[in-house]
Amino acid sequence: MQNSTVDFSQVRAQFPILQQQENGQPLAYLDNGATSQKPLSVIEALDDYYRLQNANVHRGVYGLSERATELYEGARETVREFLNAASTREIVFVRGTTEAINLVAHSWARAQLKEGDEVVVTEMEHHSNIVPWQLLRDQIGIRLTVLRMNQKGEVCLNALKGLVSEKTKLLAVTHMSNALGTINPVKEMAEIARSVGAKILIDGAQATPHMQVDVQDLDCDFYALSGHKMYGPTGIGVLYAKEALLEAMPPYQGGGDMIYSVTFDKTEYNVLPYKFEAGTPHISGAIGLAAAMKFMQGIGLDRISAYEAELLAYATEKLKTVEGLRIIGEAEHKGAVVSFIVDGVHPHDMATLMDQDGIAVRASHHCAMPVMQHFKVPATVRASFGIYNNFDDIDRLVASVEEAKEMLL
Amino acid sequence: MQNSTVDFSQVRAQFPILQQQENGQPLAYLDNGATSQKPLSVIEALDDYYRLQNANVHRGVYGLSERATELYEGARETVREFLNAASTREIVFVRGTTEAINLVAHSWARAQLKEGDEVVVTEMEHHSNIVPWQLLRDQIGIRLTVLRMNQKGEVCLNALKGLVSEKTKLLAVTHMSNALGTINPVKEMAEIARSVGAKILIDGAQATPHMQVDVQDLDCDFYALSGHKMYGPTGIGVLYAKEALLEAMPPYQGGGDMIYSVTFDKTEYNVLPYKFEAGTPHISGAIGLAAAMKFMQGIGLDRISAYEAELLAYATEKLKTVEGLRIIGEAEHKGAVVSFIVDGVHPHDMATLMDQDGIAVRASHHCAMPVMQHFKVPATVRASFGIYNNFDDIDRLVASVEEAKEMLL
Repeated sequence: MQNSTVDFSQVRAQFPILQQQENGQPLAYLDNGATSQKPLSVIEALDDYYRLQNANVHRGVYGLSERATELYEGARETVREFLNAASTREIVFVRGTTEAINLVAHSWARAQLKEGDEVVVTEMEHHSNIVPWQLLRDQIGIRLTVLRMNQKGEVCLNALKGLVSEKTKLLAVTHMSNALGTINPVKEMAEIARSVGAKILIDGAQATPHMQVDVQDLDCDFYALSGHKMYGPTGIGVLYAKEALLEAMPPYQGGGDMIYSVTFDKTEYNVLPYKFEAGTPHISGAIGLAAAMKFMQGIGLDRISAYEAELLAYATEKLKTVEGLRIIGEAEHKGAVVSFIVDGVHPHDMATLMDQDGIAVRASHHCAMPVMQHFKVPATVRASFGIYNNFDDIDRLVASVEEAKEMLL
Repeated sequence: MQNSTVDFSQVRAQFPILQQQENGQPLAYLDNGATSQKPLSVIEALDDYYRLQNANVHRGVYGLSERATELYEGARETVREFLNAASTREIVFVRGTTEAINLVAHSWARAQLKEGDEVVVTEMEHHSNIVPWQLLRDQIGIRLTVLRMNQKGEVCLNALKGLVSEKTKLLAVTHMSNALGTINPVKEMAEIARSVGAKILIDGAQATPHMQVDVQDLDCDFYALSGHKMYGPTGIGVLYAKEALLEAMPPYQGGGDMIYSVTFDKTEYNVLPYKFEAGTPHISGAIGLAAAMKFMQGIGLDRISAYEAELLAYATEKLKTVEGLRIIGEAEHKGAVVSFIVDGVHPHDMATLMDQDGIAVRASHHCAMPVMQHFKVPATVRASFGIYNNFDDIDRLVASVEEAKEMLL
């Protein structure tokens, strides 16, 4: 399959795990919303790090430690450039999107918000962008307000304008819904937040694998991402935040590297971004994430988006030919995710049968139970695509759905 | 070098990084207190995971995800057995020791402690076991009390008995000092804590690489460790806590996997240990940590301790022959760490020169500034040993110290 100058079959060949069989069938990995597979360049970056360059960072005066520090801080610069952040001081390495959002709730919101202040989320948020605000609600009495969506799985900007007020201190919104595929108009939402003096936090876990993100263009306050969903390692993610916000925020975790000096009486905190990175960081994870970002840039973010749009269009068209199949999430602006149910068939049963055909899809509430409540379904089957998927994967997906349906009905 | 039935030269051969040259010299890696190098079995476990087994855990119904879940939960069982915990429900995966301690401060202490309650730490704690309690002091007004040490770098059990009272709610203490090597009598300290109804948290970051730890025998409430210091990957660590404590503790971070059900009104939390593991975990990190623990068990924890005691004795004896060299930390019960200063020589200058000889040591406050304040030194040079070090490393260390001293004086 050719897409402008990129041969995506060559891209697929870079992923060792896709060369294996699953239940005697080639693996069609269609669970990219949960996690992505890793290309050789990422696997080898991790391997090289541990075989040749491993040392603790920042405090060593010997060569090995200095090289590890260069790699780790070089990874931060790669992330900065990937997101077009103004400065590496705005790039905080965390475990993943969930920790990034919890960091904002714990440090920024707990210090800035008081009883009666409002956090607005959408109805399509992942639990990771709901529960931290509920915890905060229980702790300090903020209000949690929900921007509802329509039957296509979209939110309405005018409804948001009507919802926010001077009480609104934060709009916490997903860039792309993991359960529906909906891509939200986050740039416009950021403007609406600003119009009432609120900040915006964007959950970018699902967006960064699929599209170019420019935090300065979005003019967002916080942006969170997970490495493992964008071809990088597990255990690493990023919180981007505007420097002035980070400067004003109290520390998150206490420990080594986040302090400048310690006595039992008084402790001075380190400069950004280290104030928010207590303890030995996940050094290999940051290096692996940088390798993944370079891998994506090598293909081209626009080409990735264009290719995946073709996959989405093809999958949508083909799945619609299956009788009794209903697609959940039909937003105009949508990433490469198709959630669906088939009348009379439980999603788990279907996914279990599809595994027999070597098709890896997810049957779940996708950690977005309010979405399931909205559409009055217990779960959906979700096929979510990545850069290694192809039209053959989709043909096999559809054939497997048909087959499973026949067996289960 | 033979130690009972283990050939430690064969152990060393398992570490690829030690086969390389540093400044034209074989690498003598003596900065194990900061981080350890990784054996082939750990590097290959990570590699295999990403090449063959990578998927998100817990929620997938397809084979790949089920196998990843088995590996991840199998790693938890390996940790349980390594620490002799009663149940895998007591094993929470975190980023490292720093996060483990912050989790206890954030969840357990914030819920249980009130103004005027006391946390006791020792004077030899790493910043990671000081700053979280200072943050809590600033937030809720607890008192932070310090158990002082003597000039050998030891604490006195009788002094501890005199210090604690019914106001004491937590004793937070390092098992082994990273700056001094002192091994604290944590079992006896746990008893003293219990005698006043306080809990004990043990920072095991430096202990677990060097000795058998049995949390049931210690009868400790919390035990924290870091994977990267014990031959495992970066970004992974463990909080062990007694089940009843974890059950009663409020959640730490909110997100996927830590909940059972979510509506905007009400959220039910998941069972242990998942209540404390929000978001996609560091799956490969847990698997790599389990590989590291198995590697250590393959050698034998007692044999590791015995061999490193030989290294420590040899290094101490040889370093004492250097005129003007003072060892900082001369506890009776000590792990394989030698901190020292040389009259008239700044530790950083010495370590920088030693790097030219391929000797990687640390010159630093070792994130234990109160220890430096106690001994009235700005920093020390620290040689800290691991299972791959040998007597030749020590001969080269001592020769390099002599040489650097000559150049700098």
